[in-house]
Amino acid sequence: MIREGDKVLLYGEDGSKIIITVEKGKKKGTHLGHVNMDDLIGKEYGDLIFFGKKQRAFYILPPTFIDLIFNMKRRTQIIYPKDASYILFKLDVKPGSEVIDTGVGSGAMCGAFARVVGKEGKVYGYERREDFYNLAKKNLENWGLNDFVELKLRDISQGFDETNVDALLLDVPDPDNYIEKCWQALKGGGKIGIICPTTNQVQQVLEKLYDYPFIDVEVWENLMRRFKPNPERLRPFDRMVAHTTYLVFATKVLRKIGGVSDE
Amino acid sequence: MIREGDKVLLYGEDGSKIIITVEKGKKKGTHLGHVNMDDLIGKEYGDLIFFGKKQRAFYILPPTFIDLIFNMKRRTQIIYPKDASYILFKLDVKPGSEVIDTGVGSGAMCGAFARVVGKEGKVYGYERREDFYNLAKKNLENWGLNDFVELKLRDISQGFDETNVDALLLDVPDPDNYIEKCWQALKGGGKIGIICPTTNQVQQVLEKLYDYPFIDVEVWENLMRRFKPNPERLRPFDRMVAHTTYLVFATKVLRKIGGVSDE
Amino acid sequence: MIREGDKVLLYGEDGSKIIITVEKGKKKGTHLGHVNMDDLIGKEYGDLIFFGKKQRAFYILPPTFIDLIFNMKRRTQIIYPKDASYILFKLDVKPGSEVIDTGVGSGAMCGAFARVVGKEGKVYGYERREDFYNLAKKNLENWGLNDFVELKLRDISQGFDETNVDALLLDVPDPDNYIEKCWQALKGGGKIGIICPTTNQVQQVLEKLYDYPFIDVEVWENLMRRFKPNPERLRPFDRMVAHTTYLVFATKVLRKIGGVSDE
Amino acid sequence: MIREGDKVLLYGEDGSKIIITVEKGKKKGTHLGHVNMDDLIGKEYGDLIFFGKKQRAFYILPPTFIDLIFNMKRRTQIIYPKDASYILFKLDVKPGSEVIDTGVGSGAMCGAFARVVGKEGKVYGYERREDFYNLAKKNLENWGLNDFVELKLRDISQGFDETNVDALLLDVPDPDNYIEKCWQALKGGGKIGIICPTTNQVQQVLEKLYDYPFIDVEVWENLMRRFKPNPERLRPFDRMVAHTTYLVFATKVLRKIGGVSDE
Repeated sequence: MIREGDKVLLYGEDGSKIIITVEKGKKKGTHLGHVNMDDLIGKEYGDLIFFGKKQRAFYILPPTFIDLIFNMKRRTQIIYPKDASYILFKLDVKPGSEVIDTGVGSGAMCGAFARVVGKEGKVYGYERREDFYNLAKKNLENWGLNDFVELKLRDISQGFDETNVDALLLDVPDPDNYIEKCWQALKGGGKIGIICPTTNQVQQVLEKLYDYPFIDVEVWENLMRRFKPNPERLRPFDRMVAHTTYLVFATKVLRKIGGVSDE
Repeated sequence: MIREGDKVLLYGEDGSKIIITVEKGKKKGTHLGHVNMDDLIGKEYGDLIFFGKKQRAFYILPPTFIDLIFNMKRRTQIIYPKDASYILFKLDVKPGSEVIDTGVGSGAMCGAFARVVGKEGKVYGYERREDFYNLAKKNLENWGLNDFVELKLRDISQGFDETNVDALLLDVPDPDNYIEKCWQALKGGGKIGIICPTTNQVQQVLEKLYDYPFIDVEVWENLMRRFKPNPERLRPFDRMVAHTTYLVFATKVLRKIGGVSDE
Repeated sequence: MIREGDKVLLYGEDGSKIIITVEKGKKKGTHLGHVNMDDLIGKEYGDLIFFGKKQRAFYILPPTFIDLIFNMKRRTQIIYPKDASYILFKLDVKPGSEVIDTGVGSGAMCGAFARVVGKEGKVYGYERREDFYNLAKKNLENWGLNDFVELKLRDISQGFDETNVDALLLDVPDPDNYIEKCWQALKGGGKIGIICPTTNQVQQVLEKLYDYPFIDVEVWENLMRRFKPNPERLRPFDRMVAHTTYLVFATKVLRKIGGVSDE
Repeated sequence: MIREGDKVLLYGEDGSKIIITVEKGKKKGTHLGHVNMDDLIGKEYGDLIFFGKKQRAFYILPPTFIDLIFNMKRRTQIIYPKDASYILFKLDVKPGSEVIDTGVGSGAMCGAFARVVGKEGKVYGYERREDFYNLAKKNLENWGLNDFVELKLRDISQGFDETNVDALLLDVPDPDNYIEKCWQALKGGGKIGIICPTTNQVQQVLEKLYDYPFIDVEVWENLMRRFKPNPERLRPFDRMVAHTTYLVFATKVLRKIGGVSDE
């Protein structure tokens, strides 16, 4: 049952998605008219509400984390769900993990990590731009996840405060400059993931990874294809997101001997 | 530091991966020679061990969940990491979630859900074949995850015991036969994910989903492309996994009005 | 050297492409100003011309067939170059081939076949809609290819006039209805190609193909990915054409024995 | 009707393809038994022949050019049909075209060009290795195409004999070294296509293309996906060719002015 303070997603007949935090006695303006929030209180998730001049129907849903990140205020390129979910899995993030995320940007990946690590874990977020830092702080608060994240307004050229972290995500314009610092922050057997939008960055990052004790180096690219959900004319959508980023993964070891093949 | 009872991954120069549970005073035979387990105790993760006639070098690593599922005993088609991670994200599984997984098969998806839902949540796994049920039980025990999973040796044609679950994964040969039962088990706003290896199954499932109050129906296919990690000759591997399954997702609502477009 | 009557492509600094047939003493209006056609006469291909108020630079190029079909008047969905070229190759069209193309639509595939079959070959184009028939006629004339094509304003439900053709392209909304007629028109060992935008059509067409003596049945889908041609930031374009059509190919035999596996 | 001297493709129930040149009174050994060639003479294409101990059925078909190149003797990496057909289309090769192909390798692309350019055109094939040169000569003879090709046993570091060619395909290990020579051989408005298996080569080639008067630079990658042709279980094959090469295309102009954007 929906109560005051809940975040709800209104899902319209036209596929539009509106996220609202329920406040007693208030109205919320949308492009389809005003929602009287009192009408939401006491309803069940999955139920319908009608509002606006045309009394348009909206389903009342609990917003998913994907809904939240697509809905958040952002000024940076977002990491797509297809990539975010694979990073979580490849970095083996689980309850209790300690994870570094840099740069934080709008905070979506920090939030994705935070949801999983829980109270026994911790996410350390490094961001050098104050506007992004503030934005991420606000977004994480809004998602109820800031207890699990320690945000730092800091350039990473001096390295990280932490050592022995389980995993680290490097999402900066010049990742090849920070590979040594990342190695120092990770525990033995810890995982690094690196966002590289261009093939040139992948090449530069690979060269650096081979200079330090990293093994099990993998490069992936993820093509998600969506289909029109019409059972009588099933076919992919005409156009798709063709590229977001290449993903580079590796595992820290304490020392490296020659001859470890990565093919 | 590695102790008795720990699971360790030995990562060889040839890229081979061996998972061992450390037992004092015992040896473990591998295709590259015998490992004296006492040699592992007290070492750090990321360190090296040498064994076998040729004293081959192996890195000692903590196995990731992906390592564990590729290493497990299985008799069924595995859900690939690319699909498993996306399912977790799309079904919005988080600490505290209640999730139904059916059919359980070797238990990999049960384990993936269990790692995230934690103590406050629960995974209900339905499997009708006794051999799979026993195999999944053993795998989940082996991964230390069986506290979070309630396995049921049961056909789902009679439906599920649970109601109001947050999410449900349907991975059976005839998914279109169980859409109503799934709807009954889910909470309002709950998410369903359906594994459909063929386009015919997708069509059949879509038709059924439109017969019941489900909205926000999406069909996805995930193509993961891996690159040879050679910075001087960066290019994709010659061959790739071209198809595992289509993924269908939808959201339960309590009642449905006409005219909700899903394109 | 460019002469009166030549078709030239003007390729602008902004990537725009304008196709002009050179006429003495005339001007051609474009969105970037007027071209004085006399200025083109006597120039070499690959040279520059400047026109319009801002004296914008344009390269003078011979238009390719791809340029011509993207520039033509059309009222129908075009077959993309990626698919057109593969069809030509798979149907083994060569100088001297006799080919049926139906429906003709705007005439692009007719033209693509005509360019290759030459004087010793022939393309038979069937189109039931008069407006498309007239459009295709005009386009083929414009490309100088109508000597190689015999266009027929005709529904194919009564079958084809020709027998023993080398290849046949079937591009109609209900291809599964014409498989027998196609078989009758083809020579033994002749090739059929079928345009199927949806998976449902592929399924229906496959069923019919197995009812008649066709072998070597193949289904393909072609994903062309384009990269931003920046050597310092090489990466795919953000978005791509994700789907145009599935392509089904098969070979006519005179009679079929059981048990020919098509996997 | 099949005569002596014809090339026929025997297509077996198991999908195997055998190409035979019919000789009176001779037998041809295959892995499935001996074919008595006299049995083929007088038969129609599309008909059946039975041979071997088990009297296996084989369809008698005219081999396509794709059949011929997959069947030829080769010592080099083949250009796949998906790439060969797109190159033909993008380079706008047609009856009468003059085309340079280098390196020739086993001669497949030379043959593909030769089939289209016909008697009024010409293919100039440059190959520096004598073994490849001889192999290509034999293959082209075998396909009946050597009248249309002038093969040259020659290194291209000294450039090409021809000027004003319509199109040029560059398929050598170090393509960035020959961009100027290629420019010199092409006519104004002529097309170049470059085979680049790695991203590094693409980057190097792009840099050189921008140093010379080339415009309309495009980089493409072609993913062909094949489906299991089962109408009741339609789905892609499990594995696919994930990468053969990147394809770079550009157009020669006589001189270049600044500021032409290629995005």
